[in-house]
Amino acid sequence: VSAPFAERALARVREAGSPLCVGLDPRLEQLPPALCDLDEIAAGPLAPIRRFSLALLDIAATVGIGFCKPQVAFFERYGAEGLALFAEVLGEARAAGLLTIADVKRGDIGSTAAAYAEAYLGKQAPFASDAITINPYLGPDAQGPFVEAASAHGCGLFVLVRTSNPGAAAVQAIADVDGRDVSTHVARWITSENRRLAGEDMRYGPIGAVIGGTVRAALVRRLRRELPRSFILAPGVGAQGAKARDTAPFFDSKGEGVLVPVSRGIALAWRDAPSGTDWKDAIRQRMQQLKHALAKVAADAAR
Amino acid sequence: VSAPFAERALARVREAGSPLCVGLDPRLEQLPPALCDLDEIAAGPLAPIRRFSLALLDIAATVGIGFCKPQVAFFERYGAEGLALFAEVLGEARAAGLLTIADVKRGDIGSTAAAYAEAYLGKQAPFASDAITINPYLGPDAQGPFVEAASAHGCGLFVLVRTSNPGAAAVQAIADVDGRDVSTHVARWITSENRRLAGEDMRYGPIGAVIGGTVRAALVRRLRRELPRSFILAPGVGAQGAKARDTAPFFDSKGEGVLVPVSRGIALAWRDAPSGTDWKDAIRQRMQQLKHALAKVAADAAR
Repeated sequence: VSAPFAERALARVREAGSPLCVGLDPRLEQLPPALCDLDEIAAGPLAPIRRFSLALLDIAATVGIGFCKPQVAFFERYGAEGLALFAEVLGEARAAGLLTIADVKRGDIGSTAAAYAEAYLGKQAPFASDAITINPYLGPDAQGPFVEAASAHGCGLFVLVRTSNPGAAAVQAIADVDGRDVSTHVARWITSENRRLAGEDMRYGPIGAVIGGTVRAALVRRLRRELPRSFILAPGVGAQGAKARDTAPFFDSKGEGVLVPVSRGIALAWRDAPSGTDWKDAIRQRMQQLKHALAKVAADAAR
Repeated sequence: VSAPFAERALARVREAGSPLCVGLDPRLEQLPPALCDLDEIAAGPLAPIRRFSLALLDIAATVGIGFCKPQVAFFERYGAEGLALFAEVLGEARAAGLLTIADVKRGDIGSTAAAYAEAYLGKQAPFASDAITINPYLGPDAQGPFVEAASAHGCGLFVLVRTSNPGAAAVQAIADVDGRDVSTHVARWITSENRRLAGEDMRYGPIGAVIGGTVRAALVRRLRRELPRSFILAPGVGAQGAKARDTAPFFDSKGEGVLVPVSRGIALAWRDAPSGTDWKDAIRQRMQQLKHALAKVAADAAR
């Protein structure tokens, strides 16, 4: 059994010196021209997507980034072969020393939730990951099998609390007569479970939260206060419009407890580079910029 | 492009004479002894699971059942090979004349939701299905790419509204100051979308709802009134404790608009049969019983 995810994550952020996480949402249209061999693509999109994904992991390891978050939907759309590549990418990421967060947003009840947990959590799992994202709509009992499996294997969970899309409020901001909205109810369940599982001596429990990087600062601060024992996964920096400095309210008073995944902002860096720049150099430079920018935000938050 | 899912589903229920849907949640421990060749299982669980799943589809076609609902989690737990079997099962179900509802409960935002839709909706999709289940936590805009793809391909969606598990209320019953709970908000979005998409002349729109068969009758009736244009998928009959007659409040005034998936209640029928009974006969008889019991509930609801 591995050490608890939250301990491993905290150590990894300190080693890396930054909460940056490389998101992997590979799309054909992201491929740099050097990887666009039309004959190869005509034979199937997976070969160039594989080369691009493995190159991103390789660069991330060189730059000293601690985490990667592959998004399963971009593999699932290619069927069983795409999912074989998803498993390979997870394995290569671990081999490169990155902690892996499989962004799967699964959720179901009882034995079905347990079957999903078997797919992702534990060394024997076909898509073995250090952590996964899950969806809370079905209620706390439906999250039980994920919590059990995560605890048994030293893995982590990131429960959707407040997402970054414009329509998120339609469900997540529905508030009861006491003014507590759905996100707050989910956050309180997370904190109560983290207390039960991690005890008072451990800083973070196994259950983290997803809060979008574009969520307004006042709401982030309010939810952060409800989640004192959680790592927060804050997507939305880059293509969705948030800047590195917008992640400031996510950090706890020690400038820790946050992971910031960036996908398109990294994968498409070659488009913004001066012509003649090698695409790998452009991506490496973008990773370094983001790594340092987020390290600075974290350091400022710790004052 | 196929005819709209709701029209095809309505015709199929009438042909079959029953809203019964065969759920496929294949687990090793469900296998009848005749399929338990230990050498084969030691070599990998997928061969016997495949034989059992295909046999269930074959029997369902013989009995004249109109629908099947494979649960992806029980294939996903076996990795890419399990998902290759999931694709095969979907193809075999269609070949056997069944309409397929892939129970995947996916949900994500923007281009990620679109990637999931590409995985399941449309003839070119690797896991091509007639309909899928989706999760509404992320809000209406996150459901947009699924709605677009379903409309483009004549497919259906079943959005989780109120689930059958004991903890469902923790999120789904959070009610605003006007007393409208999360399930009601989701139901109203579904109905407004169905009006927009199907116009007033079509009885049902493409967006159905999942409401658990164990949900109390008064709540089912209230949600049914909010969903006049939706097929309802009502799981929970059998292993989860609901009886066929508990589905009565789900039917509309014509005794239609419902699909009732039964998984373990069918797959485990061989355990209840007198010793010496062929497992296929036991399963066939159970399917026939359920088919007739649900046909009677529907007929009674139409009075």
